[in-house]
Amino acid sequence: MEKFQRKIYLSNVELKEAKEMFFKELGKLEQRKALEVIKVYDALDRITAKPVFAKISSPHFNASAMDGIGVKSEVTYGADESSPKKLILNEDFIYIDTGDVIEEPYDAVIMIEDVIPIDDESVEIIKAASPWQHIRPVGEDIVASEMIVPAYHRIRPVDMGALLCGGILEVEVMKRASIGIIPTGTEIIEPEDEIAPGKIIDSNSTMFEAMVKTYGGVSRKYEAAPDDYRMIKNVILKAVQENDIVIVNAGSSAGREDYTGKIIEEIGKLIVHGVAIKPGKPAVLGKVKGKPIIGIPGYPVSAYIVFEAFVKPLIYKYNNNREVEKRCVEAVLSKRIMSSLKHLEYVRIKLGKVAEKLIATPLNRGAGITMSLVRADGIVRIPKNVEGIEAGERINVELLKELEIINNTIVSIGSHDMIMDILSNMIHEKYPINSLSSAHVGSLGGIMAMVRDEAHIAPIHLLDEKSGTYNVTYVKRYLKNKDISLIKGVKRLQGLMVKKGNPRNIRSIEDLIGEDIVFVNRQKGSGTRILLDFKLNELGIDSREIRGYAREMTTHMTVASAVLSGTADVGLGIQSAAKAMGLDFIAVGEEEYDFVVSSEFLEDEKIKRFIEILKTEEFSKKLFELGGYKIEEPGRIISL
Amino acid sequence: MEKFQRKIYLSNVELKEAKEMFFKELGKLEQRKALEVIKVYDALDRITAKPVFAKISSPHFNASAMDGIGVKSEVTYGADESSPKKLILNEDFIYIDTGDVIEEPYDAVIMIEDVIPIDDESVEIIKAASPWQHIRPVGEDIVASEMIVPAYHRIRPVDMGALLCGGILEVEVMKRASIGIIPTGTEIIEPEDEIAPGKIIDSNSTMFEAMVKTYGGVSRKYEAAPDDYRMIKNVILKAVQENDIVIVNAGSSAGREDYTGKIIEEIGKLIVHGVAIKPGKPAVLGKVKGKPIIGIPGYPVSAYIVFEAFVKPLIYKYNNNREVEKRCVEAVLSKRIMSSLKHLEYVRIKLGKVAEKLIATPLNRGAGITMSLVRADGIVRIPKNVEGIEAGERINVELLKELEIINNTIVSIGSHDMIMDILSNMIHEKYPINSLSSAHVGSLGGIMAMVRDEAHIAPIHLLDEKSGTYNVTYVKRYLKNKDISLIKGVKRLQGLMVKKGNPRNIRSIEDLIGEDIVFVNRQKGSGTRILLDFKLNELGIDSREIRGYAREMTTHMTVASAVLSGTADVGLGIQSAAKAMGLDFIAVGEEEYDFVVSSEFLEDEKIKRFIEILKTEEFSKKLFELGGYKIEEPGRIISL
Repeated sequence: MEKFQRKIYLSNVELKEAKEMFFKELGKLEQRKALEVIKVYDALDRITAKPVFAKISSPHFNASAMDGIGVKSEVTYGADESSPKKLILNEDFIYIDTGDVIEEPYDAVIMIEDVIPIDDESVEIIKAASPWQHIRPVGEDIVASEMIVPAYHRIRPVDMGALLCGGILEVEVMKRASIGIIPTGTEIIEPEDEIAPGKIIDSNSTMFEAMVKTYGGVSRKYEAAPDDYRMIKNVILKAVQENDIVIVNAGSSAGREDYTGKIIEEIGKLIVHGVAIKPGKPAVLGKVKGKPIIGIPGYPVSAYIVFEAFVKPLIYKYNNNREVEKRCVEAVLSKRIMSSLKHLEYVRIKLGKVAEKLIATPLNRGAGITMSLVRADGIVRIPKNVEGIEAGERINVELLKELEIINNTIVSIGSHDMIMDILSNMIHEKYPINSLSSAHVGSLGGIMAMVRDEAHIAPIHLLDEKSGTYNVTYVKRYLKNKDISLIKGVKRLQGLMVKKGNPRNIRSIEDLIGEDIVFVNRQKGSGTRILLDFKLNELGIDSREIRGYAREMTTHMTVASAVLSGTADVGLGIQSAAKAMGLDFIAVGEEEYDFVVSSEFLEDEKIKRFIEILKTEEFSKKLFELGGYKIEEPGRIISL
Repeated sequence: MEKFQRKIYLSNVELKEAKEMFFKELGKLEQRKALEVIKVYDALDRITAKPVFAKISSPHFNASAMDGIGVKSEVTYGADESSPKKLILNEDFIYIDTGDVIEEPYDAVIMIEDVIPIDDESVEIIKAASPWQHIRPVGEDIVASEMIVPAYHRIRPVDMGALLCGGILEVEVMKRASIGIIPTGTEIIEPEDEIAPGKIIDSNSTMFEAMVKTYGGVSRKYEAAPDDYRMIKNVILKAVQENDIVIVNAGSSAGREDYTGKIIEEIGKLIVHGVAIKPGKPAVLGKVKGKPIIGIPGYPVSAYIVFEAFVKPLIYKYNNNREVEKRCVEAVLSKRIMSSLKHLEYVRIKLGKVAEKLIATPLNRGAGITMSLVRADGIVRIPKNVEGIEAGERINVELLKELEIINNTIVSIGSHDMIMDILSNMIHEKYPINSLSSAHVGSLGGIMAMVRDEAHIAPIHLLDEKSGTYNVTYVKRYLKNKDISLIKGVKRLQGLMVKKGNPRNIRSIEDLIGEDIVFVNRQKGSGTRILLDFKLNELGIDSREIRGYAREMTTHMTVASAVLSGTADVGLGIQSAAKAMGLDFIAVGEEEYDFVVSSEFLEDEKIKRFIEILKTEEFSKKLFELGGYKIEEPGRIISL
């Protein structure tokens, strides 16, 4: 029964308000003024704590600015082409190089090009020198006591050079904020540990440490604490003692073993528990012994977003550093995003420049999908009280990658195949400026993206049930108003993927029927699904007879993975996926996997490169290694 | 005579061509493929050498996505509000938390909110569970064998998290390019060494090392080699052995002791000697034992520009990293820049946003003026074959600072006083977003800047010879068409600055006359110059009677510095400058140093803050410490 008495409710404080409450409470702390004196050599990217004034001038002596001769200017007066002046070495002049000291009695420099040699002891000049000409006076660059850099300035390489020129060897800088990181959870294991069902690899701590480093702090990671109130409390007390800021990862929600909020309430002040953002709602903001403490949810995307929202500005504040504004661009949303009225939502998106339009395609929105952050080109924030954004609307995207990279990316939307990863790498290795971004929405989804001009290419494998041919009839039907071509790709084997050794003895599509066989399906609109339905139709099988027919996966690999992990006995997919996951494979048929392309893009440099790669010997070698592919004329273009 | 036989001529190869020649020659080298395997923990900002594929799936087991109960979905069928189903613990269901393993016979999760507790052994549900609901299937985030990051990808914190989730502990990355740095010159001393006339502090090596670090390489600095052909050659041979890229600092020109070009010719291939850029012309590009070697001129600004032009792209190339494009903005040039037709010139500029216009003001263009780089907000490139750019023209500026900083900067153009440094710091410390940028062009120059709307404020101290009053009449005369106000500043003592103990026994302006006294002057248009000329006029002294009258400095500190270093006996300036340089001071008069401002800017937040700082107790305390200042009503506004 204990399970039902533990419910505490999270608040739903708006992000802006939560930040204000948190920083206001922290502002009451005595302003942190931790400084340290470090060598200029080590000062790159550190923040000055005070203005730095030059100790010596630079140059610190009057120096010749030219190679030539140092002269007494008054003896040169009157020299001209009609009456040259003869000068005697070590009496009227001395030889001098750039940077040499010039001192009394010499007060001017004549460049060597204007000096006419006479003999070892004398030269002639045909032009008078004015006093101090071609001399760099003391302090020309830096005058002693002049300010070189102001307070709260991030030290750059040029600043380091100037400081040394000004006689400064050490600078007073802000001590870097130290961040204590406490991973919690009985299920947590270190990345090096043996994995076992139920164990979760602690990847967040490493991500946090890298973020701390990127933002100019130093981190101290504590050993993972199991879900035990006293143990977590003790680590928090220790971490608060040893750091400026403490973060506790996981256990920030309101579940049975979510202790962060309760502990902070006991030993400090709980400021906010629950913020109206998604992902990241179960965030905890508090103060313990005068130090800020942040409870961060465990899901990687939530962890990233809560760190960015609360920990990053704290680090900058402690370091007296200024946060650089994120760069934003305007893009057109390619498909509708529905959003809750209750939260500010952070949607990760892929960007692509197609026909001069920047197209934003939302990625998987799950808080646990780390890869949505890895793949994202940007983030769009959907405000609270907005129900969603329609396809075609203009949105403001915070960039996570350089725009130049995005502009040089081939946008592929359509069916999934492992060759897309291979092509992506081959292009990027040969042409580092280019990359290939694949969204997997199935073959028909790819065609729809082409209708809306959202992709450069759409990989498809669509069987026309009447003619028995692949792809061409679909393109003609759905894209008849456009000037479209087809780039020939590969032929590949589709078949049933089963566990190694085929324990359920599955031999054909007919064997999918029956209560004891669990199938896993692909989503509607995918070529594989169309193939399955075609075969079922041919055989007169009702899909309701197949257990698991309703469970849909979006890639070959996730189907293979379901079979490998035992949540299904069999799925339909390509041979290369079965091989990659060590599954057995029963061939069902051969299909054509080609690329739809707008004919206008055939002149685009990056598409030309894509086609070039398709035709390489190396690509066909890689296909052979994967297994399950055949090629005839990859890269051949068919105008439709 | 040896001096006149050593002349070799530098070429004047255009930058683009020089780069092409250099990189083409290097491209013939076998492509560098130095990889290393490092821990993911250490991989932040490193560049992947190969695509990285997941070893395990994430999640690697089927996991509950909710707190609740795990059930066999088939026993829940038929449950609804009118006919709830009773479930028995450990038979029909188990309690489960988010992240827990879900395994046979359970295949669905019902969230705790939808579970009605009955007793310790049973619960009731009122809704059926569909198979696999609220379960994160194996591979939902990452499927084993899926690509996590491609080749040549800079690893970010989120990537590190994803790699660990995918079971990756080590990654193959590009080995960082190593850069050997060889300082040369008999006159070179380490920053720690005692300075002496003729000795030059090696600040460039530290700047280079910091630049190498910033761009992702590792540096190895060699001991400074004296100007000796054999010794420099030996260090080069050693450095070429030990590094990927070698840079030789100073000695890259065509002078008597400039050996870099000649050595490369002897032991390798000299590709280019002399590039049509300014600063930076005497650059050397070569290849020794297959390694690129760059001779970099010694002047700090030339050194920076040649490093940026040739070494930076090499480091990126070696690391297989992609250079990020520099951000550019359009600005209006505030004063004419003349340029040579022979070079591409890099002019450092200060930017300021005045009345919605971004104004670019060129800084000192000397190759030796490190502070022009420290102070610069951006760089404008004036192409070869362009004679110059007129004031008012729109130019494209490569940013060296964030635009946000520039937009929050108070632009001051006018007379120089040390209080400008103090005010700059006080504002920046109290309001870190704001800063104050001062250009020193003299009082009249400041008024002219206000005429052209190029500054927010113009500090001036201009004596009206007829009325004997300060500033107001000048503003009325020159700015009569504008709505202008005057912000009252400080009164300060002007006087003669002489060496400690006054060895030439100078007592008054009259003592400036005579062959044995060397004066140093301020530039025309400066208030101090106007004061001097006024006094000379009053006394009936002809300026030609004053030796050194024609030698003009632009700040009080450079005048003081000239006196201290002995290139002059006396100069006119403010008491605080004399005090800062340890000079004696003979008062000549008191003057008013105020700030001209456009009345519209009085409502601008940053100008309000400037006025607020002027009025603080702390500011008057600092003036007292400096000495030589009086204040009456600082910050009082006079409408004119």
